[in-house]
Amino acid sequence: MVTPMLDAARRTELEDFLLELNRISADVILPLFRAPHAIEDKGPKGKFDPVTAADRGAEAAIRKRIAERFPAHGVIGEEYGEDRPDAELVWVIDPVDGTRAFVAGLPVWTTLIGLRFQGRPVLGSIGQPFLGETFIGHAGGSRLLHRGGEVRLRTRACADLAHATIATTDPDTYLDEAERAAWSRVRGAVRLVRLGCDAYAYAMVAMGTIDVVVEAGLKSWDVDAAVPVLEGAGGVVTDWRGAPVGANGGRVVFAGDRACIDALVPLLAV
Amino acid sequence: MVTPMLDAARRTELEDFLLELNRISADVILPLFRAPHAIEDKGPKGKFDPVTAADRGAEAAIRKRIAERFPAHGVIGEEYGEDRPDAELVWVIDPVDGTRAFVAGLPVWTTLIGLRFQGRPVLGSIGQPFLGETFIGHAGGSRLLHRGGEVRLRTRACADLAHATIATTDPDTYLDEAERAAWSRVRGAVRLVRLGCDAYAYAMVAMGTIDVVVEAGLKSWDVDAAVPVLEGAGGVVTDWRGAPVGANGGRVVFAGDRACIDALVPLLAV
Repeated sequence: MVTPMLDAARRTELEDFLLELNRISADVILPLFRAPHAIEDKGPKGKFDPVTAADRGAEAAIRKRIAERFPAHGVIGEEYGEDRPDAELVWVIDPVDGTRAFVAGLPVWTTLIGLRFQGRPVLGSIGQPFLGETFIGHAGGSRLLHRGGEVRLRTRACADLAHATIATTDPDTYLDEAERAAWSRVRGAVRLVRLGCDAYAYAMVAMGTIDVVVEAGLKSWDVDAAVPVLEGAGGVVTDWRGAPVGANGGRVVFAGDRACIDALVPLLAV
Repeated sequence: MVTPMLDAARRTELEDFLLELNRISADVILPLFRAPHAIEDKGPKGKFDPVTAADRGAEAAIRKRIAERFPAHGVIGEEYGEDRPDAELVWVIDPVDGTRAFVAGLPVWTTLIGLRFQGRPVLGSIGQPFLGETFIGHAGGSRLLHRGGEVRLRTRACADLAHATIATTDPDTYLDEAERAAWSRVRGAVRLVRLGCDAYAYAMVAMGTIDVVVEAGLKSWDVDAAVPVLEGAGGVVTDWRGAPVGANGGRVVFAGDRACIDALVPLLAV
């Protein structure tokens, strides 16, 4: 497989732009996170408003800026659908991944922005602006930018599931019984399980503190941003069979070590 | 029931001291969180070292400071057992609640410090120093101290489970089948479920972004710190029958609204 690559000057320009999009998104979302109308009791009807406002407002702001700066680029987002999805460069965005964490006040939601070049994710970021963290990467390397500076991201080796730390958001929300049974097999084989962290757990794989994340029912905007961050840190993203993830998401494994996926695939057979 | 209370001057002194203990603990723990030896691959044997060092180091530092300043006070902690547990004032501490989150690099572990007066928790804090947050409270009120200032904590009303957001850390780790069945009944009755957040979820109840947390198998150091924070914010902590929690923890409910516990109790019958 020939992997499409951006030349270095173009990539640096787009990487700077990606950080700008993260800032634009954070400016919309942060005032709504734990905002008084979410924290005070307004009853159930008002409960999910801040999410919608955060998601929609941030996606609209990101789309506006892309349209200004790179009008030929495509955009795929959760809230406002597809614009030019067949363009050579396509942004794939989810301003608030982990909306359930967001409404519960938990700072493990993330802003996911990926860039496809000729159909493949080549640049991406996982941002958590409340924590002041942006995990950003491409094939040449991945970094964590944080309030105190930046660190290079490196996954850790883990060929033996008996030593693995594994995460999934909520296995009870897997849609079919075979998926839940697969998760139970995986859970029984690993050392440590973490739940509830959505895409923030992908960033922990890139950082080398979690070995693998297993998810089902993902959309492209849940996946594309993470692929370059993981790959640039030494990891790999596949489907549950160990094959490349299709353009539509689905059942996905994010691992720091290819050997970990090889060990998981027999358990994940559905 | 007559609730023991500290007089205001004494309470202010102890509240200042509680914040000092949080700082002392953070100074030990933060350099070990996501430290290079945890992030780089050192293989499975080294994986849990930073936790032990953080837990033990922080508890030792806290105990040393209590012994210097208040040698007559008692201390109960996870790592070093009980000193003078029948003293009039007893500190109950867990420097790293959520050790699994800690080793996985997830910033939802907390430092729990509670103070018992005449056997009842009257002052407590839930600290997350990586986020720069300390939730602190007593019967007179609870506050969140954060980098940008402080806010008063108020739980929200929630009498109807169909509108409730509920959290537990990991129902698959409940020890008996009846507990897991009870969780399944609860899960089926509520609107939104969050997993994986240990005591950080209790703080979200105090803040009014989560309605209730259900846990099983807790120890006193998982509970005592949270009781004053919840009660000072308008919430309540009980066992699964809606009765006061015993000194040894066990099955516990942390709720923002007493009515929410009343609705839960029939589902939690084990």
